[in-house]
Amino acid sequence: MQRKSNFRDVFYISDATAITSETLGHAILGQFPLETRQTTLPFIETNERAEQVKSLIDQSFESTGVEPLVFYSIVLPEVKTIIEQSQAHFYDVLNVLVESLKNDLQLEPQPQLQRSRSINRDAASYQDRIAAIEYTLAHDDGISLNNLDQADVILLGVSRCGKTPTCLYLAMQFGIRAVNYPFIAEDMASLKLPAIIEPYRYKTYGLTIDAERLVAIRHERYANSDYASRQQCECELNKVEAMFRREAIPYLNTSSLSVEEISTRLLDISGLKRKMC
Amino acid sequence: MQRKSNFRDVFYISDATAITSETLGHAILGQFPLETRQTTLPFIETNERAEQVKSLIDQSFESTGVEPLVFYSIVLPEVKTIIEQSQAHFYDVLNVLVESLKNDLQLEPQPQLQRSRSINRDAASYQDRIAAIEYTLAHDDGISLNNLDQADVILLGVSRCGKTPTCLYLAMQFGIRAVNYPFIAEDMASLKLPAIIEPYRYKTYGLTIDAERLVAIRHERYANSDYASRQQCECELNKVEAMFRREAIPYLNTSSLSVEEISTRLLDISGLKRKMC
Repeated sequence: MQRKSNFRDVFYISDATAITSETLGHAILGQFPLETRQTTLPFIETNERAEQVKSLIDQSFESTGVEPLVFYSIVLPEVKTIIEQSQAHFYDVLNVLVESLKNDLQLEPQPQLQRSRSINRDAASYQDRIAAIEYTLAHDDGISLNNLDQADVILLGVSRCGKTPTCLYLAMQFGIRAVNYPFIAEDMASLKLPAIIEPYRYKTYGLTIDAERLVAIRHERYANSDYASRQQCECELNKVEAMFRREAIPYLNTSSLSVEEISTRLLDISGLKRKMC
Repeated sequence: MQRKSNFRDVFYISDATAITSETLGHAILGQFPLETRQTTLPFIETNERAEQVKSLIDQSFESTGVEPLVFYSIVLPEVKTIIEQSQAHFYDVLNVLVESLKNDLQLEPQPQLQRSRSINRDAASYQDRIAAIEYTLAHDDGISLNNLDQADVILLGVSRCGKTPTCLYLAMQFGIRAVNYPFIAEDMASLKLPAIIEPYRYKTYGLTIDAERLVAIRHERYANSDYASRQQCECELNKVEAMFRREAIPYLNTSSLSVEEISTRLLDISGLKRKMC
């Protein structure tokens, strides 16, 4: 039996998707110097499945010699009871705060399966989110520039600075209709906002990136091309940043930001409401 | 001063993206019969911004006459202190569980800004996720059927049964390379798996949907078309479900499931590991 002091098995368990348990567990584990092996077990809806999960956790304890960490959110009482009999440390991701709210508000909670991001909770708002994804896909990378009036945001920037994943995240997570427009040589030569974008400048934002990082990203796709050369990248970035300044387009450097961070910063700058369901 | 008994202002506040606070706050609020107005305030990184946020919360208390609910996760000590002086009920989304882990593990937490889903935390795994998004986009709706060997999953189903948003969610959230293949008339006539998919049947999954729901979805896009007719939808669904059964392709009915639920169920069926960063 091997035993590494900072190793732990981690289980995310739920009778729904387990996304909340995962999100919170990740954020918490990020604060501890641990080496982990992580397993997600969603839709544990029957006593039989719960028994299987209990065995899995107990096996982990036996083989590693330390208690696994279980982040969980389970509404079904019997399923919960079975899993809590495993040999582990337990972290109920909702329970403590639900109790606090209950006391503060003097209201009884009504736990329901899958109320988070369920299609049944708010069908209209869910359909809006799917429509935002479709709109965003149809307007990726300048494929279509129709219906720009329906866009919530329009992102501008050089090729490979992070526009596409950011637009998709905005649509998927927040129901935002996001268009992205890649600069073409003519736009850069004129140093002006493209005529088709001009009427919508109030909802236009720029993305930029450090030349070094852009070279690396482009190089990965087209090694040793002009497109990926330091000179080309610097030239494009200089021109586009000059345009952003000249046209007074707010812009953001994405070099050290994840899509989550770029997206939330854009929402913050733009004052756009997140549409959650 | 109006006062509705079940109305509350809700604030999600963080010195990072506030996504964790939002996710958890949503899950918790879903259990209470409340009417809410929700505001997310990310990147509160300076004392000045913190004072502004405090004013906003206090204004809400004064105008509504009830304490707003604040879900927050703040690492910067001064920012945290300022915000906690507002007139509100406070729910620190990480703190209680971090304390539990600290005791259970006998390890000191090292709170860091933006450790969740930050590009700096695990650059290689972040790049994998971006690559998965690109792969998935390039393989959406049968655009390309090259490199199927690199796919983690291949989704089959009739047009408009939920394949595209599911694939994008799998890529965005879990770093899964997901291909989707829409059935064409010939595939349905032959009732066989398309030849190009055949070698990859072990990673192929089907989506289906109730005819009534498919009619409604198609109708929204192409009202009164044959494509959206009850007869056409039923015919396609019958053929495709017969093919799934005949070819022993595991499949899922998406009618009452959100993309989050479809995606996590697919991961569960397939045994695929979520790649988080």
